[in-house]
Amino acid sequence: MSELRKDPIIGRWVIIATDRGKRPTDFVSTDQVGGPTSCPFCEGNEGMTPPEIYALRKKDSLANTEGWDIRVVPNKFPALRIEGTVERQGAGMFDMMSGIGAHEVIIETPGHQDGIHNRSLDSIVNLLDTYQRRMEDLRKDNRLLYVMVFKNEGERAGASLSHPHSQVIATPIVPKRVKEEIDGSLEYYDYKMRCAFCDIIQEEKRFADRIVHENVSFISICPFASRFPFEIWLMPKRHMASYTDMTRQEMHELADCLKITMRRLALSLGEPQYNWMLHTSPIGQVPRNPWPDVNEHYHWHFEIIPKLTRVAGYEWGTGFYINPTSPETAAEFLREVDVD
Amino acid sequence: MSELRKDPIIGRWVIIATDRGKRPTDFVSTDQVGGPTSCPFCEGNEGMTPPEIYALRKKDSLANTEGWDIRVVPNKFPALRIEGTVERQGAGMFDMMSGIGAHEVIIETPGHQDGIHNRSLDSIVNLLDTYQRRMEDLRKDNRLLYVMVFKNEGERAGASLSHPHSQVIATPIVPKRVKEEIDGSLEYYDYKMRCAFCDIIQEEKRFADRIVHENVSFISICPFASRFPFEIWLMPKRHMASYTDMTRQEMHELADCLKITMRRLALSLGEPQYNWMLHTSPIGQVPRNPWPDVNEHYHWHFEIIPKLTRVAGYEWGTGFYINPTSPETAAEFLREVDVD
Repeated sequence: MSELRKDPIIGRWVIIATDRGKRPTDFVSTDQVGGPTSCPFCEGNEGMTPPEIYALRKKDSLANTEGWDIRVVPNKFPALRIEGTVERQGAGMFDMMSGIGAHEVIIETPGHQDGIHNRSLDSIVNLLDTYQRRMEDLRKDNRLLYVMVFKNEGERAGASLSHPHSQVIATPIVPKRVKEEIDGSLEYYDYKMRCAFCDIIQEEKRFADRIVHENVSFISICPFASRFPFEIWLMPKRHMASYTDMTRQEMHELADCLKITMRRLALSLGEPQYNWMLHTSPIGQVPRNPWPDVNEHYHWHFEIIPKLTRVAGYEWGTGFYINPTSPETAAEFLREVDVD
Repeated sequence: MSELRKDPIIGRWVIIATDRGKRPTDFVSTDQVGGPTSCPFCEGNEGMTPPEIYALRKKDSLANTEGWDIRVVPNKFPALRIEGTVERQGAGMFDMMSGIGAHEVIIETPGHQDGIHNRSLDSIVNLLDTYQRRMEDLRKDNRLLYVMVFKNEGERAGASLSHPHSQVIATPIVPKRVKEEIDGSLEYYDYKMRCAFCDIIQEEKRFADRIVHENVSFISICPFASRFPFEIWLMPKRHMASYTDMTRQEMHELADCLKITMRRLALSLGEPQYNWMLHTSPIGQVPRNPWPDVNEHYHWHFEIIPKLTRVAGYEWGTGFYINPTSPETAAEFLREVDVD
């Protein structure tokens, strides 16, 4: 059974996921990435995963068999488990909670090497739609406060399987990083009565030197205070706190912006490994912030971080990043590549 | 010229270090680690580094020649520069500062492959003493608010050269992560009138299941809410906010505790790559916290994180860590190894 434990100094929660089965001896020889020959995410191998939670299937195909475009399955080695109640308890001076939550895998495509930048727009729309559906479903569980959707592409980005997949983790607490964004955007709103993200979009459009791509409804930029070389934020231009507020028309615009942005990244830097994280508002109201409503001051977005540099001691020690490439240089480089 | 830039949402500062010379094309082919044949940190190659700032030398040896035990030199590709004034300015809606500060390299030993766990106690005392001396020297510069000492061991830990070295970065702001520790320990002190770190030490001694090593003055533990497998904190048992408050006798005790701890890590996990970070109190008084004094509630310590797992999208997105090995299991495994 996993546990949520709280650091008594800075209040950060961690998941101690002993169910994942890493005993100390498993670390002695490193890098145990599975081969592609018996990939559990490839078509025909549906029996190698737990039964599907959701799938987009061809007409008349049966669950957990071939004939799908997207499959969502529980993670075989979940960090959190959905069964049980959230027990909060002390352990001496420390604080902990039972590890309740959801941990799902979204198998994005039957194609084992089908990078996002080479996929059809329809396939990307289906993926973005699946993100929304899983979020809407998990929001019904009133034990949960947050749903995080993210993607690890490549071994350096933390992926243990190379077949394209995203993950969903839902937790009974709002994660620290998201809480910081909510607190920060609230402070900005209190001071200016405007959404900080909307202001960033306005500011970026004034000079356009950090813009990577823009269409009617979405914009991608290398942010002013980028932590990493070629870090990219992708935001809806209309103010929206929750990813679930996006319309079907906007979803097509998002697929276009995401595909062109990822294509620029892939073609200009030789298909770098990357993570992306979808930051959206928490489920329900944020505790202790009854007004203004989080819908007023928060703004959902993707953060995309290519793995080009290593995070080292200084970053771990300070939470302060050293970025050797300015976002202006990165954005210019990305804009110059021919994506057709 | 580097710039310090502030993220407008969560207030995190980053260093945009364009002087380090990473143009976009430098990332296209990855992993450019230098070979050991022409190591600039080896004895005889002193001319390959900038002139030394400090060195522990054999009698009659000349600066920047052979005959040293430890050398401190400016980083050849500094993230921050010591010359100039701290200019604070706006850039549209954003906030920035000129990249003033110090970035030094401590070459720990002439031995190219001389891991900390195999070094003599005297050599480790010299290293710990050098940390103290550089900190005391940089604290005299009233433009600077914080001195961070850290070590990257191995390529996965972010080291670009394999010869054992530590680094020192001094900044005109208190880094976010340190500020969080100070705020957290202040909150704890306000509530309990005790140092949170002193309480942790008491608590850990009650059951001893997370202790790695302990001597008269120091203790190393796998912390209750470890972010990473085999994360270790090493703390003075006497309450001390600043690393510079440590006595010479205590420094010998620290060398012993650090050596045995690192030896346990190296022998049980096959010399894993790692980072360590020295967390100490800021220079001078913390702004806006006139009482209680930071010396009352803060407690310096080392954080040691072996590179056994990858940090992935979930961690980047949430600031929330998934750790597959409980600290109790890790500490037991470390205690069991024979270090003699």
